[in-house]
Amino acid sequence: MPEPDAGVLARRREIVAAMRAIVPGEGVIDHPDGLRAYEADGLTAYRQPPLVVVLPETTEQVARVLAWCHANRVKVVPRGAGTSLSGGALPLADGVLLGLSKLNRILDIDYADRIAVVQPGVTNLAITRAVEEQGFYYAPDPSSQIACSIGGNVAENAGGVHCLKYGLTTNNVLGVELVTIEGEVLRLGGRGLESAGLDLLGLVVGSEGLLGVVTEVTVRILPRPQTARALLIGFAEIETAGQCVAEVIAAGIIPAGMEMMDRAAIHAAEAFVHAGYPLDVEALLIVELDGPEGECAHLIGEIEAIARSNGAVSIRASASDAERASFWAGRKAAFPAAGRISPDYYCMDGTIPRRRLPDVLRRMGVLSEQYGLRVINVFHAGDGNLHPMILYDANQPGELETAEAFGADILRLCVEVGGVLTGEHGVGVEKRDLMPVMFSPVDLAQQQRVKCAFDPELLLNPGKMFPELHRCAELGRMHVHGGAVPFPELPRF
Amino acid sequence: MPEPDAGVLARRREIVAAMRAIVPGEGVIDHPDGLRAYEADGLTAYRQPPLVVVLPETTEQVARVLAWCHANRVKVVPRGAGTSLSGGALPLADGVLLGLSKLNRILDIDYADRIAVVQPGVTNLAITRAVEEQGFYYAPDPSSQIACSIGGNVAENAGGVHCLKYGLTTNNVLGVELVTIEGEVLRLGGRGLESAGLDLLGLVVGSEGLLGVVTEVTVRILPRPQTARALLIGFAEIETAGQCVAEVIAAGIIPAGMEMMDRAAIHAAEAFVHAGYPLDVEALLIVELDGPEGECAHLIGEIEAIARSNGAVSIRASASDAERASFWAGRKAAFPAAGRISPDYYCMDGTIPRRRLPDVLRRMGVLSEQYGLRVINVFHAGDGNLHPMILYDANQPGELETAEAFGADILRLCVEVGGVLTGEHGVGVEKRDLMPVMFSPVDLAQQQRVKCAFDPELLLNPGKMFPELHRCAELGRMHVHGGAVPFPELPRF
Repeated sequence: MPEPDAGVLARRREIVAAMRAIVPGEGVIDHPDGLRAYEADGLTAYRQPPLVVVLPETTEQVARVLAWCHANRVKVVPRGAGTSLSGGALPLADGVLLGLSKLNRILDIDYADRIAVVQPGVTNLAITRAVEEQGFYYAPDPSSQIACSIGGNVAENAGGVHCLKYGLTTNNVLGVELVTIEGEVLRLGGRGLESAGLDLLGLVVGSEGLLGVVTEVTVRILPRPQTARALLIGFAEIETAGQCVAEVIAAGIIPAGMEMMDRAAIHAAEAFVHAGYPLDVEALLIVELDGPEGECAHLIGEIEAIARSNGAVSIRASASDAERASFWAGRKAAFPAAGRISPDYYCMDGTIPRRRLPDVLRRMGVLSEQYGLRVINVFHAGDGNLHPMILYDANQPGELETAEAFGADILRLCVEVGGVLTGEHGVGVEKRDLMPVMFSPVDLAQQQRVKCAFDPELLLNPGKMFPELHRCAELGRMHVHGGAVPFPELPRF
Repeated sequence: MPEPDAGVLARRREIVAAMRAIVPGEGVIDHPDGLRAYEADGLTAYRQPPLVVVLPETTEQVARVLAWCHANRVKVVPRGAGTSLSGGALPLADGVLLGLSKLNRILDIDYADRIAVVQPGVTNLAITRAVEEQGFYYAPDPSSQIACSIGGNVAENAGGVHCLKYGLTTNNVLGVELVTIEGEVLRLGGRGLESAGLDLLGLVVGSEGLLGVVTEVTVRILPRPQTARALLIGFAEIETAGQCVAEVIAAGIIPAGMEMMDRAAIHAAEAFVHAGYPLDVEALLIVELDGPEGECAHLIGEIEAIARSNGAVSIRASASDAERASFWAGRKAAFPAAGRISPDYYCMDGTIPRRRLPDVLRRMGVLSEQYGLRVINVFHAGDGNLHPMILYDANQPGELETAEAFGADILRLCVEVGGVLTGEHGVGVEKRDLMPVMFSPVDLAQQQRVKCAFDPELLLNPGKMFPELHRCAELGRMHVHGGAVPFPELPRF
């Protein structure tokens, strides 16, 4: 890497000094060793150390950092816990990385109104930990919940295995405090479901750090259900498993979670954690019911009947919480299990209409042969959210590129059958160039006009979500042409 | 009223001719008798015949109408069924009233994916009618559901007695087709919960016709619950009724609906429909449970115990659907019942945190004495959504103004205790001047910047929602000043 010239170095010194004047002590990191810890998020194929890392401790510091960056036209990338799987927190070489990890306090818990008010750096699981003694929990449960922060959950509209019944982050967040790039502090939403005026809260959830920086989140907490039980159901064919899922939903049952694993995933998981999964099946369903004991027992009977009528070859219902945990053990270990059988894997995240499941899996198998890469499938079957894991070896020249091309084809397939590019991981840098597969130029232009209403200088997390960003002043209403801001080459690792 | 001058008449003729060129036959109304039918919506204190009424039959006609109006700088007020209680469809003397009533077809029903795709003029109840034979229904159920259209429901984010369990419109709409003021056709959301990019769908729901015109709506349909039962519980004090509501929720029970009526409402309703309500109580709760039969029976037992421990003086559980209907008869007749005991009434719509209910009702009583006007209360107690009805006589000089001042004080009180200006009726013209009670200038400016991202010339439904509209080009990012577009005097009837 060539040495930066004197002008660049002077600019860097000026930015670092300004940040130090706002955030004292160890809250500003500019040493290369320190920066390296922030060079990637969960999408580790892309790495880029930022110009400087700033870790404010108060909303006021966040506002001052953003206002200074706005006044001085410095780009800003917000970062929660850095667990994004779509590169949402990938730094910019000439930008400030604004880490929210030190804003990590729980500010208020109100059981009568069933809400918790927390700072963005609080982890997803810490919310549940804080309220579980009173019998409550926070419903969205992404796999990374022990590490990921609620601020990041808001940015990515995170989901989890229970979002079939309890919704995504957007269905569980009632209000946020948002700091704009100019340092203005907005309050969006409140402590209830209702709002007046334009619903900017729904817009900000899932906006991937492009509209502002969230410094406080009010979430809905739920009473822990009286009981939870799970079913483990094996099928000789993917098609009949998919049909079973469709019939459960059509029967009006909304399980707390309904997960599917294909043969490759079952074998990988079983070899890793010995969960006791049947190995002679093509598909395994884990169906969890929660609620009053009588209701769970009743629904388990109904689902067993549906499974049997679809030719299930094995059915087990958990008789204890320990057994229920064993059913989940393999599913929860699917990602590390993939890591055991392949040097690298690439986890995709697309959604499809439930009924297209068998068709999509068949076509994914054809793609797997074409690309010469194995794929193992775990997915939130109930809401049609696929997580295919493409197995590859980054040390083999060209294999990463092949895996990415395969992944892009999977996402195109999802959109083609009426699904969505992303279920819960966000667009980030990973899927930004696929956005035109899903959206017309008119749709994308309107989304960007809304971005411009928050950040007309395009300083917040540029290079994410939009395949190209048009200068706001040039974003003609009738015609989208010219004026696109060039993104830097993506810093592939 | 003075005769308009020649220039105004020529302009009117030009606009009408342009509309006739796009929408043939009886779809354009400009005769004064015809216009009068559209001069008000459900907020009948305000009336203003529009310049012309246009009733397109296709999305393409909607797009052409809007594009022409944009090119010729003509204001447009969209209208669904005209049942808005906040004046959301109040016409403008110099604007086109764009009625969506002829876009009234159900386009697709997909039971496997549990969705219905409908045009905006389809009534709320017609969706349920179309799917009920297969055992499904559409959950949001505003009181006006027999008349109100799904397009209007989207514009106002309508609720109903069941939104405690099933959410508002925003929780039940998966996608829309939206035509912008320039005639561009956008598709927002899709057929599932997930989306990619900025969530413009959540923004458009509840935007009161200020961002675009919805020409197609994809809604979630739900399987009809196996059973529904209701409890009718009387209390000697409002406070204990409020405490009972809080404890039901805190116990983790989410009833399908939980409604409260105060003494005045009970007596008015009983005198009207003879529902068999107890007359010696201060508050009546109607709690509806739905789901599997065993679950309902179990929960009814739990709620009875909570009610007893809070000193309930009467408890009845419905033993049949007929009895359940009788419990609801009085509540559903509350509005006409108010009309029977008073020449006029003004129905408010604010929300408060549930636990503030007794306090707010007490202070509302004090306000009632101060203003010298009776108020009767029915409300969605479960989600803290109040519907106080202020009784007045429009024939008494000044009484309407007194009622409105009283109503504004009630809404200020809601905001003061942490609630929201509107639960499900929208801001419209009714509450627009109260928006600064709830939102800071910075919050309002950001909302308007988003409005400008859709409609920079402020042609769509101006005069609604925002207390003042700033010309978009003059809406400085740091300072909100000057440049406000003057609204016409509100056309009070």
